[in-house]
Amino acid sequence: MTFSYNHLFTFTESVFLSMGCPETDATLATEVLLSADLRGIDSHGVARLAGYVRLWEAGRINVTPRVGIVHETPSTAVVDGDGGLGLVVAPRAMAIALEKARLAGTGWVSVKNSNHFGIAGYHAMKALAHDMVGIAMTNASPLVAPTYSLDRLLGTNPIAVAIPAGDQPDFVADFATTTAANGKLEIAQRKQLPVPAGWVQNADGTGSTDANAVKNGGALLPLGGDTGSHKGYCLGSIVDIFSAVLSGANYGPWVPPFVAFLQPPADPVGQGLGHFFGAMRIDAFRPAAEFKAHMDNWITTFRNAQAVEGRKVLIPGDPEREMAAVRLVDGIPLLDPVIQDLEAIGKKLGVKL
Amino acid sequence: MTFSYNHLFTFTESVFLSMGCPETDATLATEVLLSADLRGIDSHGVARLAGYVRLWEAGRINVTPRVGIVHETPSTAVVDGDGGLGLVVAPRAMAIALEKARLAGTGWVSVKNSNHFGIAGYHAMKALAHDMVGIAMTNASPLVAPTYSLDRLLGTNPIAVAIPAGDQPDFVADFATTTAANGKLEIAQRKQLPVPAGWVQNADGTGSTDANAVKNGGALLPLGGDTGSHKGYCLGSIVDIFSAVLSGANYGPWVPPFVAFLQPPADPVGQGLGHFFGAMRIDAFRPAAEFKAHMDNWITTFRNAQAVEGRKVLIPGDPEREMAAVRLVDGIPLLDPVIQDLEAIGKKLGVKL
Repeated sequence: MTFSYNHLFTFTESVFLSMGCPETDATLATEVLLSADLRGIDSHGVARLAGYVRLWEAGRINVTPRVGIVHETPSTAVVDGDGGLGLVVAPRAMAIALEKARLAGTGWVSVKNSNHFGIAGYHAMKALAHDMVGIAMTNASPLVAPTYSLDRLLGTNPIAVAIPAGDQPDFVADFATTTAANGKLEIAQRKQLPVPAGWVQNADGTGSTDANAVKNGGALLPLGGDTGSHKGYCLGSIVDIFSAVLSGANYGPWVPPFVAFLQPPADPVGQGLGHFFGAMRIDAFRPAAEFKAHMDNWITTFRNAQAVEGRKVLIPGDPEREMAAVRLVDGIPLLDPVIQDLEAIGKKLGVKL
Repeated sequence: MTFSYNHLFTFTESVFLSMGCPETDATLATEVLLSADLRGIDSHGVARLAGYVRLWEAGRINVTPRVGIVHETPSTAVVDGDGGLGLVVAPRAMAIALEKARLAGTGWVSVKNSNHFGIAGYHAMKALAHDMVGIAMTNASPLVAPTYSLDRLLGTNPIAVAIPAGDQPDFVADFATTTAANGKLEIAQRKQLPVPAGWVQNADGTGSTDANAVKNGGALLPLGGDTGSHKGYCLGSIVDIFSAVLSGANYGPWVPPFVAFLQPPADPVGQGLGHFFGAMRIDAFRPAAEFKAHMDNWITTFRNAQAVEGRKVLIPGDPEREMAAVRLVDGIPLLDPVIQDLEAIGKKLGVKL
């Protein structure tokens, strides 16, 4: 079943308002959350709304946070999210990075005491309108085993980098530092399909194609899978350290779970989960027009490369941008279990889907 | 056959002096180059010295470069390497990043008109003594096919991130954004062994285990190989853009080849090849002692994770640090073809190995 963007926007905004979010926060959180549905990253959109509601019911989300800078230099800041929705904390922190970049050339903000922030790409893309490069990353609940580990110590820890172009659409990379994002695994679970080799391991560390391996004590594998997971492990670790060890958030196995039925670790090493944002003004390096002309050349060169039969070479961001254009017109398809979930929270909070 | 570090240092320094490098540059270039041999990254050490000599003979290296800032803000700079050895240009650029970070919290330097800079890890590690995070990346000759591409448009484009710890050894990640570095492929070629699936593709884009596939018109694959190469493609692209489109160096297929027998493209889009360096002062985020105590906790938690039978979980930088400790004492083993190469350039330049 398919819903229009505006329909889902009104519903989601009303849910956040019912939770007690101030109006500007409810609107902002809705925009961030639905950007995932628009861009086709269904696992991170309204499908997660019920999860946020349950975290709030469990007293683990502060709907009226005082988000503020706790330490800063001309090009850096640490932001305390005050336990707020990551969907609200993250845009505030990114705005600080953009303002630092305006004044000092670049801005780098590490965030503690936050929560899940939707898709990293949304935040990185906020830099584009300012002729800046935008960077966003976050740590997440531990589901990933470092190379040779049986223990799950890292999240899927995504990285997004948005780079402005001229006449061409902007370059927007946004990817989990695992072989596959957890959302893709959930889809395979629902459809009861096996997953490709290199995505997951069993509890004993052997490779698996069972979509339920992670549920049964196994783990997601870092990017690189069977042939080079140490590089994905490096990347996931860097995201964890920049997001949480720099800011004073929880890191590694201490990152609080997104699901409300699991308790956060009893011995936290920091506050909430952590994000890291960066903004670099293009003209802190070279004139923006010159840079964008070369980006256009870069993009057309790659897009026009000779390709494997029946395929074409894509530019990072192409599929998500094309999907957003379609879904703005045709609406956003939701799976039945997601609709039932939304109807249930709607009923509880007095909001009709 | 094994040579002491000091023996190779004297030889290499003499070679650079014979090429006309000023004494400080010859010493610096030698330190950078040999850091690869010490750390076990044999493909990037003295094995490449003959390659640098041949580039110089071909008039493609300026041994007396005037390395300078062409544009800057409080936290950024673009550096022109004046066609110098990357081994000399890169440490100068990284020093600028460190000085920017001292004053503004972070420093970010994009470099044009340079050449191959040895191992990225060496440059990133320069931040550690200053209680800073160090970042280094570079683009390189096009050997890598983006996802679905038949054309080779990217280099192995490595990323290094060095993060200071307290009592524990520092965290040092340094990896090519391909499944396997080109050096590993060269070793398989020399030993006439097949390579694992996911490393390379044939000229028609089909997967291959032939170590000679790249020589025969094929390509190296981005990190992720058969299951997720679009993420490695994103990473390699980001390195290319930060290193070259930000600075005004050549990018993508225009990056000049390292080997002197191949001519640089006749229609350059920039100058030389490009690097990108970053430095972030830890105390621009939180007190360094506090950060390092948490890094020690991070490192011991990961190192002590339950591991697959017969393995242990490593921290990025462990293998290279342990190798360096061994080779400083036991010496650096060189393969016969490398020794013959060194003897040949030594004879030509009047330097005895």
